Parts: sequence; structure tokens; C-alpha cells
Amino acid sequence: MKIIKVGASVTQSNDRDAELQRLQLKAKGQLMINLMSSPGSGKTTLLSRLIRDMKDVKIAVMEADIESAVDAERIEALGAKAIQVHTDGMCHMDAGMTARSLQAMDDDESELIFLENVGNLICPAEYDTGAGLNMMILSVPEGDDKPLKYPLMFEKSDALVISKTDALPYFSFDVSRCCERARKLNPQIRIFPVSAKTGEGMGELEAWLREKLAGWKAGGKEV
Amino acid sequence: MKIIKVGASVTQSNDRDAELQRLQLKAKGQLMINLMSSPGSGKTTLLSRLIRDMKDVKIAVMEADIESAVDAERIEALGAKAIQVHTDGMCHMDAGMTARSLQAMDDDESELIFLENVGNLICPAEYDTGAGLNMMILSVPEGDDKPLKYPLMFEKSDALVISKTDALPYFSFDVSRCCERARKLNPQIRIFPVSAKTGEGMGELEAWLREKLAGWKAGGKEV
Repeated sequence: MKIIKVGASVTQSNDRDAELQRLQLKAKGQLMINLMSSPGSGKTTLLSRLIRDMKDVKIAVMEADIESAVDAERIEALGAKAIQVHTDGMCHMDAGMTARSLQAMDDDESELIFLENVGNLICPAEYDTGAGLNMMILSVPEGDDKPLKYPLMFEKSDALVISKTDALPYFSFDVSRCCERARKLNPQIRIFPVSAKTGEGMGELEAWLREKLAGWKAGGKEV
Repeated sequence: MKIIKVGASVTQSNDRDAELQRLQLKAKGQLMINLMSSPGSGKTTLLSRLIRDMKDVKIAVMEADIESAVDAERIEALGAKAIQVHTDGMCHMDAGMTARSLQAMDDDESELIFLENVGNLICPAEYDTGAGLNMMILSVPEGDDKPLKYPLMFEKSDALVISKTDALPYFSFDVSRCCERARKLNPQIRIFPVSAKTGEGMGELEAWLREKLAGWKAGGKEV
């Protein structure tokens, strides 16, 4: 497993870099998904479940963290390709950092590439990484008021995964209220309540990912 | 309830501003505590419990958020002084922002002033706010591996509150492993496992806060 260290990009033209990255990945039929959430909302657990469930799809994961390699080790133990990216203290990934990580991974085979962004509900939403899709996770224990406090993340995400639904009996989290608040910010957002532990709701999420991957490969205008 | 908007401070000398702020608060016998954590780890719930439990101590709360006023409303409903601070998109509070918030609050009466920082386990750790103590929360659902991934926050905190211990039966969180990891980064850190819901562990935390407040007022070198 590789561990690389990437600092902030020198270029200021993040959006242009991101767009270029997206076109390059599209040409290779590789769909990159930028996965964002607070620390501890279950990004790695969700990815582990997807890797186990979707064995027919070639999946790779870029794990971005300030320190440690625990997440990449977990992914690699499942037999998927993983690379650990250390952000040198940075609280988010930008397009340049992502491009260097992709280069270090050197992988033209994988169809779905997940970028597990730094655990942070604020800063990652401000930077286009060049991913084809933005997916965020909000876990049940975090509370259904989060769209009110961190609106940009909900606005920028194509999909919201409400994770740890198996914990719903123990927390006062109103799923429909959360969906309503998220849709008020982003009417197009797709919402998937799931439990990666029990598997509840994973089928819908996986079907959506397959559909998006097929669309991406077909090269249609819509992702 | 006031809602003020503060952007990044113009001054670059954050540490000097913070030190000045600390001295001014000390002269007034007011202990400010910078409370930091991920989104949804229970900062407002913990503060609500402290306000209910410590009625003999005058407590004020500055709620820093990117948007919304839900937290300040919750605190005000308990009869405590609260001010909502909007950070204009900023992912943390710095000393200048904190000074302007204190000025807007205009309160020489309160003995304990909590600064509920923006929900973020990364950026707030990088900025001295001028608080007398840094306190962080890690909630059980977030996982016991967080010291490995967000070391600076653990290094900078005088106290670590492990919250939502009532949820321990439902999550694989090893309290002693978490404590060990936190102490490896910061041997002096005080650790308080608590449930603000059931009250478990709150007594120890409250005793510590009273002790720190008394020390602060006595003006000793040690906080």
C-alpha cells in the first residue's frame, strides 16, 4: 500500500484543474466519487460494504487523512485497491491534490474510484476535486439539524447517504424532517437511508451507483 | 438574542490577540472555555446539561455556526445568556472573531463563558481563541480511532469529554483504547466519559470545571 503526502496545490485555478481531471477520467470510463462527511459518520464502513456487495465492479479507494493509514488498511484487507493520502494538515482535498493522488495510484483498470475526503463537513464542500459525483454521508447520531448548520455541503452533493439507520431507535433523528431540510437546499439531491451494518437500504444505493457508472461510461451528458 | 456576523480577523497576530484576550478575561475573573468537536457530537446538549446542573454558577454561551440560530435558541430557553455568532462561512473561530463576539455579548457578570466553536475536528485546533481552557468532545458513535486521525485537536485540548456513553452498547467503541490513544498525544489531558442524557459522569466533569474556575479566579499561575 502506498502512502503519499500532498500539500495544497500551487495552482489557483482549482475549477479548471477539476474540469480537466473530470474529462480525463471520463475518457477512460472511470467514475470518481468524492465522498464527504464529518469524522466518524461511517465513510470507510460504507465503502467496505459497497466493495463486498459489488464484486462485479472494479472499485478503488483513495483515503485522504491528515494522519494515519487505518482506513486504507481496512479497504486493502477487502482486496480492493487502496491508496492512503496524507494531506499535510490540510482540512480538505482540492483538484491538484486529487490529481497527484490519482497519478500516484496509477490505475487505469478501476471503474469506480472513491475519494474518501478528509472528515469535515465544511471545507471539502468548497473545493471541486474533479469527481464526477459528490456524495455525502450524515449519520443518525449526528442529528437531523445538520442541513441548517452546514448548508453548502448539502447544496454541493448529488447524493446524501443517511448512515447508521440501525441506530434510529436510540437517537431522536427524524428522517423525513432531515430529507425535507436537505431538499430545501438542494431539490435534486438523491437520498439513501442505509445501514452498512445490517445492509438495510444498500440495494437502492448500489443500484443508483451502477446506473450512474453506466451513464458515465456511455458518455452521455448526464452523469 | 443577538445574532452577529463575524468574518476572518484582519490581524495576522492571532496569538498575541489571544493572549491579550485571556489576560482581560482573567482580570475580570471570567473563565472562557473553547468547546470543540465534530458536528453532532453533542456540544449543545452537554452545555444544556451543565447549565441545568450548575445553577449556582453564572454561565454564558457564545454559539458559533456558519448558519442558523438553533443552538443559541436552545441555550436561551434554559435561561442562560446566549449569543449566536455567524462565521460568514469560516470553519473556525480565531482570537479576533472571539473578541468581537465577547464585545457584542457585553457581559461582565458571567463566570463561565463557553465558546461553542464551529463543528469541525480540524481547523479550530489551529487557532488560539483566547480561551483559558480548550475542551473537546468525541462522541461514542464517531469511533475510538479519532486520535489517530485528528491528533492536533487532542494535543491542544486540556480536557476530552467522551460523550454519548449511553450509546456504548450499540457501537464498538473501546473507552480505554481511546484514552490510551489520546494520552499518547497529550499525557496531561483530562478525560471525562459522560452521558448528558442519563447524567452518568457529569459529576466529575462539573467538579473539574468548578475547580478550574476557582483557580482562575484566584489568579494562580495554573488554570
